[in-house]
Amino acid sequence: MGFSEAEVIAVLQEVFATPDPRIIVGIGDDAAVVTGSSQQVISTDMAVEGVHFKREWSSAFDIGRRITAANIADVLAMGARCDYLVAAVSLTGSEELSWIENLARGMKAEADKANAVIVGGDIARAPSITIAMTAIGSTSHPILRSGAQIGDGIFLSSLPGWSAAGLHLLTHELATTSEMSKKAISEFRAPTLDYEIDFSSATSLSDISDSLIVQVTQMAAASGSSFALDTELISRAPEFSELNSLAQEVNIDVWNWILGGGEDHVFLATGANLPGLRIGKIIEGSGISGLEMKKAPVSWSHFT
Amino acid sequence: MGFSEAEVIAVLQEVFATPDPRIIVGIGDDAAVVTGSSQQVISTDMAVEGVHFKREWSSAFDIGRRITAANIADVLAMGARCDYLVAAVSLTGSEELSWIENLARGMKAEADKANAVIVGGDIARAPSITIAMTAIGSTSHPILRSGAQIGDGIFLSSLPGWSAAGLHLLTHELATTSEMSKKAISEFRAPTLDYEIDFSSATSLSDISDSLIVQVTQMAAASGSSFALDTELISRAPEFSELNSLAQEVNIDVWNWILGGGEDHVFLATGANLPGLRIGKIIEGSGISGLEMKKAPVSWSHFT
Repeated sequence: MGFSEAEVIAVLQEVFATPDPRIIVGIGDDAAVVTGSSQQVISTDMAVEGVHFKREWSSAFDIGRRITAANIADVLAMGARCDYLVAAVSLTGSEELSWIENLARGMKAEADKANAVIVGGDIARAPSITIAMTAIGSTSHPILRSGAQIGDGIFLSSLPGWSAAGLHLLTHELATTSEMSKKAISEFRAPTLDYEIDFSSATSLSDISDSLIVQVTQMAAASGSSFALDTELISRAPEFSELNSLAQEVNIDVWNWILGGGEDHVFLATGANLPGLRIGKIIEGSGISGLEMKKAPVSWSHFT
Repeated sequence: MGFSEAEVIAVLQEVFATPDPRIIVGIGDDAAVVTGSSQQVISTDMAVEGVHFKREWSSAFDIGRRITAANIADVLAMGARCDYLVAAVSLTGSEELSWIENLARGMKAEADKANAVIVGGDIARAPSITIAMTAIGSTSHPILRSGAQIGDGIFLSSLPGWSAAGLHLLTHELATTSEMSKKAISEFRAPTLDYEIDFSSATSLSDISDSLIVQVTQMAAASGSSFALDTELISRAPEFSELNSLAQEVNIDVWNWILGGGEDHVFLATGANLPGLRIGKIIEGSGISGLEMKKAPVSWSHFT
């Protein structure tokens, strides 16, 4: 590297410096000390260059935002708030110091949106860039995947598929200057988490990290009921026609993106009178109901 | 991989299954939910294949123990107990399922020693194996690096250098069947943390992860005083003559290992009447005093 580990740490300490009163001992000792809570929520998530992101496709800032958003989403998906984050990052040595700084700034920008603080980290040398983060939150009332009740509605915080669309445009070199194309690529580079939606009265809750199909299947199994999806309801979502136009332009079945895309980290909830998009209801049985087979997509997978 | 992600997760869920009453929601939902505490300690640490470990040199079990010990040590070094751990692991796809299971068993074995629970994780595909762990602990009285007072004694939980010795023997193919050689290599593969030593009344505390020299320099700077080391006292440590014999056998200055080796994660404390090895005292000034220049080693670094 053209700079020392001490220089990197100095930059990171500056980026992550905070007067937040929850922090008792910040970055610089063996570990951080923070104000705790009686029920803590803990999740960890890893992103690998070439698998989850590419430096040619995304800025360091967006890569930082993306992995941070993915971690925060797991905590929010428990009905919790995210309080603290730590990041462990391996670097190849070919990065500019400014790239590392922007990665950190992206992490901080997303953490700020959640009112979470990055309290520590580790850097290591490796043949490729790997970013592992851990998010720590709190809740007095965790909402599990298993709580769906017969008769509950099924709700999404927004229409999924934009990130999958962006990935498709990038892998097939189909990006244009249209607003829809720009939105899809932006959502792939770093998803816009819905921090405002109130799913606190949901009976079950998860974020969609693999795909809507995978997530619904898991929640149906966890709750011992069937998730009856209504594609007619989904197609009435405000963004459906935009996403559908984009899909038609590039000759893709839009349901492939909606049902098979996941890395938007849209929240999936069950319950009565929830906000967001109502897309179906819980019925007796198991698995997924209501999907015409032609709409069952090949499950979306990482791009290598 | 010759097995699916679901198979790996099933194995890990079995290895990490626990009836621990502190766990409210265990592995399998978006995040774990655990019983918290008013002051939490958080630290993260990453180990990279080829940099921090090699599969030719260490079993999966030892690799798991080593990274877990390194994480736990950072929490203990705050005067805290370690409660929870999460692990994010990237795999190349060439590993056997049994290798992954043994990695997890090594993590659990070390966590068990600390009475800590592994509550979550993530696995990803990557060109090389990277393991990032986060340790979460609790304390009502954190002990910082900055608290050393003039007149305090300087103490070690045990003699450092065994891990550096083991690394030397492995890199130079000098391993023998002697007890000393076996001990050095064993400590390199996974250090024996001292979970019993009571440094709770220390004025400052850290674990030695880089080297004694580096750690003492950092603590001297943090406390605004000088750490006067007494090599005569260090050479009276019970294990000194063993380590010195091993060093002489392979034609190395033993001080290189003791002062320049770090990954034993020996604890370094200051205070009065502490247990362990007394190796010097805090005096007015700055930096390190008392070392003859011939004993100042080249700082130990990772093996690539």
